[in-house]
Amino acid sequence: MSSFTRFDYHMMAHALKLAERGRFTTSPNPNVGCVITQGDNVVGEGFHYRAGQPHAEVHALRMAGALAQGATAYVTLEPCSHYGRTPPCAKGLIQAGVSKVICAMQDPNPQVSGRGIAMLREAGIDVAVGLLESEANALNLGFIKRMQTGMPFVQLKLAASLDGQTALANGHSQWITSPQARQDVQAYRAQAGAILSTSQTVVNDNASLAVRWSELPAHIQSDYSQHELRQPVRVILDRQHQLHSSLRLYQTEAPVLRVAQQQAEVCVALDPQGRLDLSQTLATLAQQENINHLWVEAGPTLAKTLLEEKLVDELIIYLAPKIMGSDGRGLFGALGLTEMGQVLELNINDCRMIGPDLRLTATLKQ
Amino acid sequence: MSSFTRFDYHMMAHALKLAERGRFTTSPNPNVGCVITQGDNVVGEGFHYRAGQPHAEVHALRMAGALAQGATAYVTLEPCSHYGRTPPCAKGLIQAGVSKVICAMQDPNPQVSGRGIAMLREAGIDVAVGLLESEANALNLGFIKRMQTGMPFVQLKLAASLDGQTALANGHSQWITSPQARQDVQAYRAQAGAILSTSQTVVNDNASLAVRWSELPAHIQSDYSQHELRQPVRVILDRQHQLHSSLRLYQTEAPVLRVAQQQAEVCVALDPQGRLDLSQTLATLAQQENINHLWVEAGPTLAKTLLEEKLVDELIIYLAPKIMGSDGRGLFGALGLTEMGQVLELNINDCRMIGPDLRLTATLKQ
Repeated sequence: MSSFTRFDYHMMAHALKLAERGRFTTSPNPNVGCVITQGDNVVGEGFHYRAGQPHAEVHALRMAGALAQGATAYVTLEPCSHYGRTPPCAKGLIQAGVSKVICAMQDPNPQVSGRGIAMLREAGIDVAVGLLESEANALNLGFIKRMQTGMPFVQLKLAASLDGQTALANGHSQWITSPQARQDVQAYRAQAGAILSTSQTVVNDNASLAVRWSELPAHIQSDYSQHELRQPVRVILDRQHQLHSSLRLYQTEAPVLRVAQQQAEVCVALDPQGRLDLSQTLATLAQQENINHLWVEAGPTLAKTLLEEKLVDELIIYLAPKIMGSDGRGLFGALGLTEMGQVLELNINDCRMIGPDLRLTATLKQ
Repeated sequence: MSSFTRFDYHMMAHALKLAERGRFTTSPNPNVGCVITQGDNVVGEGFHYRAGQPHAEVHALRMAGALAQGATAYVTLEPCSHYGRTPPCAKGLIQAGVSKVICAMQDPNPQVSGRGIAMLREAGIDVAVGLLESEANALNLGFIKRMQTGMPFVQLKLAASLDGQTALANGHSQWITSPQARQDVQAYRAQAGAILSTSQTVVNDNASLAVRWSELPAHIQSDYSQHELRQPVRVILDRQHQLHSSLRLYQTEAPVLRVAQQQAEVCVALDPQGRLDLSQTLATLAQQENINHLWVEAGPTLAKTLLEEKLVDELIIYLAPKIMGSDGRGLFGALGLTEMGQVLELNINDCRMIGPDLRLTATLKQ
């Protein structure tokens, strides 16, 4: 790895911060930020805002204008080398006459990784890679996973009382978590390319699974205005074709993708247990629907199955400081375990208060 | 409140730190620290180490010797004014010739509160009260509660998987929490005046409920040597006289107090539900056994009853990052709730990782 200066770190950190601004809108594209400097001055900056619109480098080069000549460009992802809906950014940087490009990370797509860098180097540009790489990775977990594995990054949302109950015995559950936690869920939904649930959950709760701008946390509203709102696709496991058009689900304009064996937008086989094949479902979402990041809100059965099949990348668990008693409905169904060695083990990676509730971020061990 | 200097704050903070050194040994006395200064120099310091041994002020005055003349004394609790096992500290400070005394808080015993201060003032000493008062309060929650209400400070320990299970359906539970969490429990036990449990728990687990010095966290071992070890009293609800002398409980030398209707060390009435009256039990422990601080380790029934009767001051909840399934044994029994409004609500006051586990400190709302 090259040695970077303190100034380089500051500039890349700024580019990462810019990239983050696109996190509600760039799907299925990655979040990318770019900063262009002349000496100690920033002369251009930009971020990718929405798929089909200019890439971060284009915005930054436009702002820099003639000052891009001999400048240094900081980009959070390797500049693209291919003609897509926009011309390749590597070419744009070459034409603008920048003399140095620092990338946080290579393109995660193994088929194009390194090509943008090679194109820049062939044009005589000094290229360094790897500055704040793990931060750049964290910005595009979904995009990177899809490019590298053909599967989406899957976040499973769970919410329960401190004693692990998701509802009273009679099904009452409004509200276990606080308004602040529910706002937090809206922010996660807004970042996802798709929300996965089941027809059972959708029908029982008449859930829209939509992002409601008015319920986003205020600090996000100030960054992301109501007219920019992008709704994630709703993906509903509907083996028994229970969805019908009068559901609130269909009152939001974003697509609904039904998953079933046949006569559905996503057709998948049944697994040996007679359930819709979840691995095939996720692969189809990533490879055919370009879903980077899947947010799962569902009942205990789907949660359990996803965990057992090791299809969950991250659990987002809200625990409300309430005690509901063990005669309520548990977070997972009965697991039938008889030895402590069979217990599912997690690692807790983050723990914080969201209003009065706890939010844990965890991953499955191994 | 008087105005205190930065130096005063530093000195009182130091006195509080000293006082804390006694937290495993002073029971039933309070933790107290004292610092004596001449100008900018500390000339004496000390803390109360064990009931029956000298108070903090005595140690600090001995160290200061003649330098106590005209000095300032910082004491975390109002100096005592009565002849007990040791002569009154207020008198000691007067005789040593200190010219100023700063106390963090008054004596919490309403019958003597203010007398030590009055004694000092009558002798012409300048007295100020209230410096770092809430920190001083936090040091002696049990002592203060007992003095003010005649009841002990009650901490209820709970431990479960993330989905609220304390054991598998067949009772297997070793180990849900990590060695680090179990060390943490040892530290809480070591600070308590007594541990409360039930004969059911003691007999089923053959639990000693003892403090094992070798299992204390290393940072505590270094402060608190093995020969200093004080065992808390074990208080066992034993309505049906199930305890017997071959239990491991009786292999630790600290007393065991059985609680029953009759023929027991603590005799209490039954409540209308036919259970041993818990409120009377706690009052007896505070008023007859001088128990400041009670640490409760028991099963779901006692936990539930203590909470329902609002006898718990603080819940210490360990959540292990494990999923055991809803067919295990829950943290509390069935509560039979039918409306969300009936749910027991807590406030989470602290949340931190203890090794891989979470530890929450919570209080019952209201």
